[in-house]
Amino acid sequence: MVGQHYIKLLNNHPWFRIKALTGKESVGRKYVEAVRGEAPEPPKDIAEMEVLPTDPKHVDADVVFSCLPTEAAREAEPRFAEAGFPVFSDAAAFRMEEDVPLMVPEINPDHLQMVERQKRNRGWDGYIVTTPNCTTVGLVLPLHPLRRELGVKRVIATTMQAVSGAGYPGVASLSILGNVIPYISGEERKVENETGKILGRLVDGRIVHDDVDVLATCTRVPTLDGHMESVVVETEKQTDKETVAHLLSEYVSLPQELALPTAPRRPIIVRLEEDRPQTRIDVDAGSVPGMSVSVGRLRVVGNKVRLVSLSHNLIRGAAGGTILTAELAKHFGLLDG
Amino acid sequence: MVGQHYIKLLNNHPWFRIKALTGKESVGRKYVEAVRGEAPEPPKDIAEMEVLPTDPKHVDADVVFSCLPTEAAREAEPRFAEAGFPVFSDAAAFRMEEDVPLMVPEINPDHLQMVERQKRNRGWDGYIVTTPNCTTVGLVLPLHPLRRELGVKRVIATTMQAVSGAGYPGVASLSILGNVIPYISGEERKVENETGKILGRLVDGRIVHDDVDVLATCTRVPTLDGHMESVVVETEKQTDKETVAHLLSEYVSLPQELALPTAPRRPIIVRLEEDRPQTRIDVDAGSVPGMSVSVGRLRVVGNKVRLVSLSHNLIRGAAGGTILTAELAKHFGLLDG
Amino acid sequence: MVGQHYIKLLNNHPWFRIKALTGKESVGRKYVEAVRGEAPEPPKDIAEMEVLPTDPKHVDADVVFSCLPTEAAREAEPRFAEAGFPVFSDAAAFRMEEDVPLMVPEINPDHLQMVERQKRNRGWDGYIVTTPNCTTVGLVLPLHPLRRELGVKRVIATTMQAVSGAGYPGVASLSILGNVIPYISGEERKVENETGKILGRLVDGRIVHDDVDVLATCTRVPTLDGHMESVVVETEKQTDKETVAHLLSEYVSLPQELALPTAPRRPIIVRLEEDRPQTRIDVDAGSVPGMSVSVGRLRVVGNKVRLVSLSHNLIRGAAGGTILTAELAKHFGLLDG
Amino acid sequence: MVGQHYIKLLNNHPWFRIKALTGKESVGRKYVEAVRGEAPEPPKDIAEMEVLPTDPKHVDADVVFSCLPTEAAREAEPRFAEAGFPVFSDAAAFRMEEDVPLMVPEINPDHLQMVERQKRNRGWDGYIVTTPNCTTVGLVLPLHPLRRELGVKRVIATTMQAVSGAGYPGVASLSILGNVIPYISGEERKVENETGKILGRLVDGRIVHDDVDVLATCTRVPTLDGHMESVVVETEKQTDKETVAHLLSEYVSLPQELALPTAPRRPIIVRLEEDRPQTRIDVDAGSVPGMSVSVGRLRVVGNKVRLVSLSHNLIRGAAGGTILTAELAKHFGLLDG
Repeated sequence: MVGQHYIKLLNNHPWFRIKALTGKESVGRKYVEAVRGEAPEPPKDIAEMEVLPTDPKHVDADVVFSCLPTEAAREAEPRFAEAGFPVFSDAAAFRMEEDVPLMVPEINPDHLQMVERQKRNRGWDGYIVTTPNCTTVGLVLPLHPLRRELGVKRVIATTMQAVSGAGYPGVASLSILGNVIPYISGEERKVENETGKILGRLVDGRIVHDDVDVLATCTRVPTLDGHMESVVVETEKQTDKETVAHLLSEYVSLPQELALPTAPRRPIIVRLEEDRPQTRIDVDAGSVPGMSVSVGRLRVVGNKVRLVSLSHNLIRGAAGGTILTAELAKHFGLLDG
Repeated sequence: MVGQHYIKLLNNHPWFRIKALTGKESVGRKYVEAVRGEAPEPPKDIAEMEVLPTDPKHVDADVVFSCLPTEAAREAEPRFAEAGFPVFSDAAAFRMEEDVPLMVPEINPDHLQMVERQKRNRGWDGYIVTTPNCTTVGLVLPLHPLRRELGVKRVIATTMQAVSGAGYPGVASLSILGNVIPYISGEERKVENETGKILGRLVDGRIVHDDVDVLATCTRVPTLDGHMESVVVETEKQTDKETVAHLLSEYVSLPQELALPTAPRRPIIVRLEEDRPQTRIDVDAGSVPGMSVSVGRLRVVGNKVRLVSLSHNLIRGAAGGTILTAELAKHFGLLDG
Repeated sequence: MVGQHYIKLLNNHPWFRIKALTGKESVGRKYVEAVRGEAPEPPKDIAEMEVLPTDPKHVDADVVFSCLPTEAAREAEPRFAEAGFPVFSDAAAFRMEEDVPLMVPEINPDHLQMVERQKRNRGWDGYIVTTPNCTTVGLVLPLHPLRRELGVKRVIATTMQAVSGAGYPGVASLSILGNVIPYISGEERKVENETGKILGRLVDGRIVHDDVDVLATCTRVPTLDGHMESVVVETEKQTDKETVAHLLSEYVSLPQELALPTAPRRPIIVRLEEDRPQTRIDVDAGSVPGMSVSVGRLRVVGNKVRLVSLSHNLIRGAAGGTILTAELAKHFGLLDG
Repeated sequence: MVGQHYIKLLNNHPWFRIKALTGKESVGRKYVEAVRGEAPEPPKDIAEMEVLPTDPKHVDADVVFSCLPTEAAREAEPRFAEAGFPVFSDAAAFRMEEDVPLMVPEINPDHLQMVERQKRNRGWDGYIVTTPNCTTVGLVLPLHPLRRELGVKRVIATTMQAVSGAGYPGVASLSILGNVIPYISGEERKVENETGKILGRLVDGRIVHDDVDVLATCTRVPTLDGHMESVVVETEKQTDKETVAHLLSEYVSLPQELALPTAPRRPIIVRLEEDRPQTRIDVDAGSVPGMSVSVGRLRVVGNKVRLVSLSHNLIRGAAGGTILTAELAKHFGLLDG
């Protein structure tokens, strides 16, 4: 599922061009046959590309985008980095490694500097840069401006996540039709740990994790794409609805200033209607569809901010977020090797 | 929808017998025709009953159960109470009135004493007793044993509510298929206010509301029956998972001691599997199906208790809860007028 | 729902420009407020347009597109036609009137000639042109080339229709979640009667209905957009799968030859995979999205052709089909009045 | 999924008692652990049973019920039959074998006689008796009385099948949410071939297949349980709606006359409302829930009968149909070995 969004976003990309696709069971087949039945038509030239083995020997490219399952990523990504490739990955395998940046380009562009230390540490010519779990992104983006201006002590979040987040075949229809499953293996821990790293400060080449206390409950609901999150943020300062709406809707950062190709004009779109955002209607929000997080249902009492956020788990939460990170890396000269 | 559950629960009830059904547009038609197309067959003798006007003049009965819409309840229920009927209502109209009990029989059986003051106040021969919003019930039942033993300072809840909670026709299929709508009109305020009243103490015939601080976010999801709630409870004492599981699973109260016909053996069923309760699978839990609240996903850190509760919005949250309340009233001699 | 697709298709249309929007309850409000909550953002300039009464006195335009409910159409459309407007309508009110064309531009472009007789008959300066029921379109388009080359004696169809076909609020979520409803009021009769008129021959200014025998069963399924139809066509000649696939995939007609703006390059897209078309994946098929009918599951034995067709009920089956008809009328000089 | 219905129906069965459960990956675990997460609680004593290997050496029982996947059935069922077990199977592996009965107890009770020839042929002490594909049952049951009284030349059917028909995990939620998939591997051929065998005559110990011509199109829709079928039956005699309704609703057969424990009082329930049967509402129809086929939408013109049938794919279409067959076998003395 994520791979299809990579192809959609990279096809016609001003800076990147797809040179190779790799796989496992589908090696040797045309891409269109490898994914058939599960998706609308891919672009013609991509459709005809032969799927290669996931092996640096077989790949000729300047950048590698990885959306491998965790175990496969743990094995393959270091081989590519060692072979000199810059690897941009939305896989979970290396996110929490001490010398691997975990990037949301609007929040922690400076963390990219860590790749130099990583290369030295590991003796690699290339490097691995990761992006967070899809659920983390929809939480941490609205947290960033609130934390900067108001301070954030504690975050309590309940998520309602779409089935595409579990990949294909993922969740059985028998399990989810007309149902809510209040558990997603490993997800809560990821959201809780990744948030602190992304919001952390780079000190002497190392990240000091932010001490925000995150309590998450992750549920699966019968929606296709788009993770909704109901969030209570306990801020350090007292605040009010107008202030919060202003901080969120005015929020822009380096990717916007640089006008990176995949950067949406507004990372956060504030909805003031009482019943938005809605998963199906707002999932593609943004000047780059699916790259903005929609935030609504703002209710503020004292230092308790309640909000509902919605983000596209396959775009901002995966393919799009990783491509935006690679664009930022290119701006910093990290793709010039 | 609720009416059908009243009929199912009252048919073959050991204490009550259905003597009359009332309606509005359907007056004069047989019950089976009034509901046709929307439900499995009603019992034969009920099916043939003629729908009467909602008017005390036309009704011959000892007890009235009301599941009227709020506005209709506000007009009709006092006329029945004035005419001498004990009215047991799951409508919202009178829940927060100062002299009207808001009942969860396991929690506040003593609140029923208020009907005497209500009768005097209003000069009625009958009285109105209410039961809470369907979402409040799934929250307040697990809160009760925790509050008694651990103290409860604050509750943060996100609900995932089924479409049957909105009645028929209720939510348009175009609005909810593959979607989550993070807003239900008036619901959050109800949950927040009703909780304090139900947990309140009766002092000199008046209820002193409990000062628990409840912050709710209510969402609609594409499920049929069953409201799920993801809850964080901040307790006064430090605690742990075993203590909480024990308090919840051992919880019984007066309806269980009296073995009232509609009382489940366990008001709260604790699930220890990591992925339960689930809406579709657990909605009918309980020795009286749909009368128990299922609670799972217990995670405790210090004084923060995280849990997920599931309750049947039409049974424990409406028809069943109200019938159980009438059973309690009968035990107290309040139906002997 | 249909109105939103009119706006999407007419916005940036090379020949037409939206000059006015009319309504009923929403008169006097901005369009964006009239539809709020139910749709993604409309284009800015349309969003700000004031909704006018559905009355020829208030409307200044060269063409009127109508997607009124049947009863409202029966009343309003003649008033517009009488006032000199060419009215292009997907409403059911006048489809079967003897002097009103019922158009599928690829099939019966010559039927547009009837408007002259209609104007004379009724003494109108304008006229009414209709397009068929959304379900008829997905059936009659693949029938056309088969009938021309092979003859068609009988058609047996079962439809699986999306909820958007019932408008908003339309089908209650309680009725359709996890359900199939094998009945849509009036639908089968429409499909059966309209097919004969569309395939009919114009003889002396009158349509001689085709005598094809159509037996339809129409069901509602929990999909959002896109009507699927499982069809058995009994042809006069024996045939085979290759012939049928060729006839359907090579089918083009006058709108394609004229390259009308809303004409898809292929009215029928033949899918040879064993499990296509699928409602959610293929609903937007076509060079003009939603204007092509996807046909697959071809199985031919003797003179029995089995196929599955899928068409977008709001685009080819409503807004798009009607706009394409107006484009054809413009080509014939019928908009020059 | 089917296994759970076997347990529900056999638990408290007057004639049969569950003595052993067998499996594959789950061998050695308790039953409750083998199915956990996917179903409501099994009965206590069943829950604690240890899952045994699917091997005659490990099983001590008088009858074997098999709901194995096709390939596993092809291997295991003969081993049980050879070892002397009567095997009643809803698996597809042996249905079309020349000496294996394919049973719908109301239609072809005499076919059970074939087991004697089967035992001789194969030199087995036991035997295999099969029941049809879940989709065949909902078609062939209403065909039986029509064929007897009116003759049936041709049947054209489109099915709308629930996801539980594909087992667990079966259909991916990503594939079916908001979608219709007009293809189920192998299903159409099964429906077409099995119908002729079930309706066939036993001549000299062999079945002469009925020559009814069946054309089926099988689709998957997002429903949980219950296969709906839209059917056109071309009868030999002209008929009318009243005759058809009478033939179907009065239909009873040997299982009803013998009052077998799992036989519903009415094998076919005729619904005269215009919008029934509906999948979710009518799936459990019958005095033995899920054992009756609901038939509605009767429309008759000349010799064309249109109807919609609904049957529970896991009960009448699997576990229940097979248990009813075993009950019939017991009546015939075929379990006395």
